[in-house]
Amino acid sequence: MENLKENERIDDLEYKGLKIIQNTEGFCFGIDSVLLSDFAKDIKRDSKVIDLGTGTGIIGILLCAKTEISQMIGVEIQKEVYDMAKRNIKLNKLEEKFTLMNINIKELEGRQEIGKFDAVVTNPPYKKENTGIKNENEKKLISRHEITANLEDFIKISALLLKDKKDLYMVHRPDRLVDIIELLRKYKLEPKKLKLVYPKPEKEPNLLLIKATKNAKPFLKVEKPLYVYKENGEYTDEILKIYGKEN
Amino acid sequence: MENLKENERIDDLEYKGLKIIQNTEGFCFGIDSVLLSDFAKDIKRDSKVIDLGTGTGIIGILLCAKTEISQMIGVEIQKEVYDMAKRNIKLNKLEEKFTLMNINIKELEGRQEIGKFDAVVTNPPYKKENTGIKNENEKKLISRHEITANLEDFIKISALLLKDKKDLYMVHRPDRLVDIIELLRKYKLEPKKLKLVYPKPEKEPNLLLIKATKNAKPFLKVEKPLYVYKENGEYTDEILKIYGKEN
Repeated sequence: MENLKENERIDDLEYKGLKIIQNTEGFCFGIDSVLLSDFAKDIKRDSKVIDLGTGTGIIGILLCAKTEISQMIGVEIQKEVYDMAKRNIKLNKLEEKFTLMNINIKELEGRQEIGKFDAVVTNPPYKKENTGIKNENEKKLISRHEITANLEDFIKISALLLKDKKDLYMVHRPDRLVDIIELLRKYKLEPKKLKLVYPKPEKEPNLLLIKATKNAKPFLKVEKPLYVYKENGEYTDEILKIYGKEN
Repeated sequence: MENLKENERIDDLEYKGLKIIQNTEGFCFGIDSVLLSDFAKDIKRDSKVIDLGTGTGIIGILLCAKTEISQMIGVEIQKEVYDMAKRNIKLNKLEEKFTLMNINIKELEGRQEIGKFDAVVTNPPYKKENTGIKNENEKKLISRHEITANLEDFIKISALLLKDKKDLYMVHRPDRLVDIIELLRKYKLEPKKLKLVYPKPEKEPNLLLIKATKNAKPFLKVEKPLYVYKENGEYTDEILKIYGKEN
């Protein structure tokens, strides 16, 4: 059994035996990360993948299970969260494949990692620095608000990291769609696939998944919607399948 | 009874007694125009509205019925289609409110109409000039392909026509969403509302409705989806309501 620190707990991912340590006072992974790793599961065999703002490592851990990538690098600025991701990698015996960097993503500019990746995945902070009520807890603040890096930084760095014609996969909020599209075009990452996630069929979408390809030709495919719950409040079959709980 | 030309027929709009003459060899109005006029029904009383690429006049005719606008101007480049729109206005007794201009929308630049409108509505050609198989029929060609004006022309002219903080309403295809958003931002028309239209809940969207406001602050509301058919093939209640056929 892994030694847990104060406020930490181990959750069973109920998917191929994976487990994850989370801090209940910090920013626990949500459905966002699970959906992103599923959306990105077309990443090809032997790919070298980087996760910007890796948090507890959940996206990389799921991608190591769902795909046959050869290398996963997670970048996490918060030392405490980075330490937790390190323990999560060990807990799931992924040390050979999955490594971590405890830096601000902006520090990647000009480093040897530039232009080396087949895929970038990211679940960036959703909120602009000066919007909404901020959590008092610093960990949640950095995870949720654009304090140490903003949307433009995430997109700019992604474009630098990717090889030509390779892909960025991002999860974000629909209210930032306009900013996302404008910035992707600015950095020559052409949006190719967009999926909106609706809590229920009759509700507004609350998440978006977007795939953009470096230096690709313009043509966007808006995919069929993903509904989380049926009208009766049960999970949809698609969500159960993503969570590995097919009937 | 109106005199009909060859290949023309009168259709009952089955909405407040409205009727429309269409050319069965040309580009008949579709659900696009009906959905756009419904999407734009928040246009305020006494507004001065312009429809770019008015076709048979369907959008303007429906807006005159659904809202309390004071003036409607339709711009249509094709003489034959313009003539049909003129007869449609007469047929629905809207001559006092609804006038037409038989010009290319690009000719509006520098004219007295600039900066005078409270709303622009448009159902522009969906296809890029050199994509897809073109119809042999010229009328369909101009209505469907970007031959005499392209997406950027429609957006640029819309921005010029609108008063400050006033709205453009457009219907288009989801595969052009990236171009639409980039161009709207370029011309300071901030996308504020986006609605995707799905043929069925489990299908990809095939239309989008977007509202953009001149010089507004960024914040996009992605609305709840609009489904045309239920899984059993019947029209949804929302579509029946839009068509004025509520149960």
